[in-house]
Amino acid sequence: MTESTHTVKSYEQELEHLGSLMARMGGLVERQTAQAVKAVVDGDEEAALEAPELDPEVDELEREAEALAIRILALRSPMAVDLRTIVAALKITGDLERIGDYASSIARRAMKLESEGNISLVGLRNMGHLVQNNLRRAIDALTTKDRDGAVAVWQSDTAVDELYTAMFRELMTYMMEDPRNIGTCIHLLFVAKNLERIGDHTTNIAERVYYAVTGEMLPAVRPRGGRSYPAS
Amino acid sequence: MTESTHTVKSYEQELEHLGSLMARMGGLVERQTAQAVKAVVDGDEEAALEAPELDPEVDELEREAEALAIRILALRSPMAVDLRTIVAALKITGDLERIGDYASSIARRAMKLESEGNISLVGLRNMGHLVQNNLRRAIDALTTKDRDGAVAVWQSDTAVDELYTAMFRELMTYMMEDPRNIGTCIHLLFVAKNLERIGDHTTNIAERVYYAVTGEMLPAVRPRGGRSYPAS
Repeated sequence: MTESTHTVKSYEQELEHLGSLMARMGGLVERQTAQAVKAVVDGDEEAALEAPELDPEVDELEREAEALAIRILALRSPMAVDLRTIVAALKITGDLERIGDYASSIARRAMKLESEGNISLVGLRNMGHLVQNNLRRAIDALTTKDRDGAVAVWQSDTAVDELYTAMFRELMTYMMEDPRNIGTCIHLLFVAKNLERIGDHTTNIAERVYYAVTGEMLPAVRPRGGRSYPAS
Repeated sequence: MTESTHTVKSYEQELEHLGSLMARMGGLVERQTAQAVKAVVDGDEEAALEAPELDPEVDELEREAEALAIRILALRSPMAVDLRTIVAALKITGDLERIGDYASSIARRAMKLESEGNISLVGLRNMGHLVQNNLRRAIDALTTKDRDGAVAVWQSDTAVDELYTAMFRELMTYMMEDPRNIGTCIHLLFVAKNLERIGDHTTNIAERVYYAVTGEMLPAVRPRGGRSYPAS
């Protein structure tokens, strides 16, 4: 990225540059999500501090990618798969930005968590790892234009929603049992909800990648429980 | 909208059609938000049922607007303000879709709320009305390309965040006081959080409108407390 934007680039180079901006942005929010999960489930303070620190860089990459996408649209009149890829990039930056936002929000909450006492974090750890894993696979599918990878991510969001529902029930019982758990449980509930939302945006990315690569839409009804908000 | 998409349209007509699709989509999610707020604060069951029923229509409008935007990009090579308007439309459909999703989520929660007992809904009512009002103004700014209107919306999101923080504290005290309040309070907390998120997306729309109309970005640091998640 040391290359000046004033350099005259070929169309091909511009598309590649857009791809690399998206890959960097994806890598950053992936890192934010990993650090956020680590901050909550391992109580890792350094990780909690790092996630929000990456926000400005994510925002800057979003602006850069969008400016480049608009420039390509204006000057190159891209067609077919190139046009779809650029439109997908414009939409996906929004999803990535939101994922980074949720991850930072989780990390900030982690800093406010006092001892969890008797509250088990196993469910949250599983949910966190699943969401992280799906996000990593979605970003891989994005950077390698992998249609099948996108479908696999799209299908696995149901598991995230099921884990969320279980978490919700579990945390409710801790609160009912002992009101001293309420503060911690509320934080953990929001963490779980934010992870579920990261899962939703990951699904969106997978749908966009699929459309960009194939020109076809995945079915409108997604295989996720999130739409019906089962437990909450 | 009875006009067939096979009719040969002028470029001007296509842009107008895109504008009207955005206005309709905006109107629908505005309605969903209004019904969601009514469902929670007035216990209006009909309103609670209506909000989620509008989801498929919102999704369909999103797809239609995006397909049209891509068609215009492919066939018309739009420039300057037209290009920015189309890119803004592609981004704003995402925000509108999310707002509709949050509104439906609020409405579904309203159906699960039992009697609120001693819990005051005044804060939620105020927050709901403010968010609704901002959303209406953002959609007005979008349809009339009103730069100053967009700035006004962008500035007023801070008030939403302050109301959210106050709500959060209030609901915590109800839960601490009496564990029988926990179930209801958790639902109300999520309702408040969803309203705050609707406020965030409304701010995004205002920023997009401002950029489309002026070609300039509003400052990266927004006047909102949401970024620092004060109470949660």
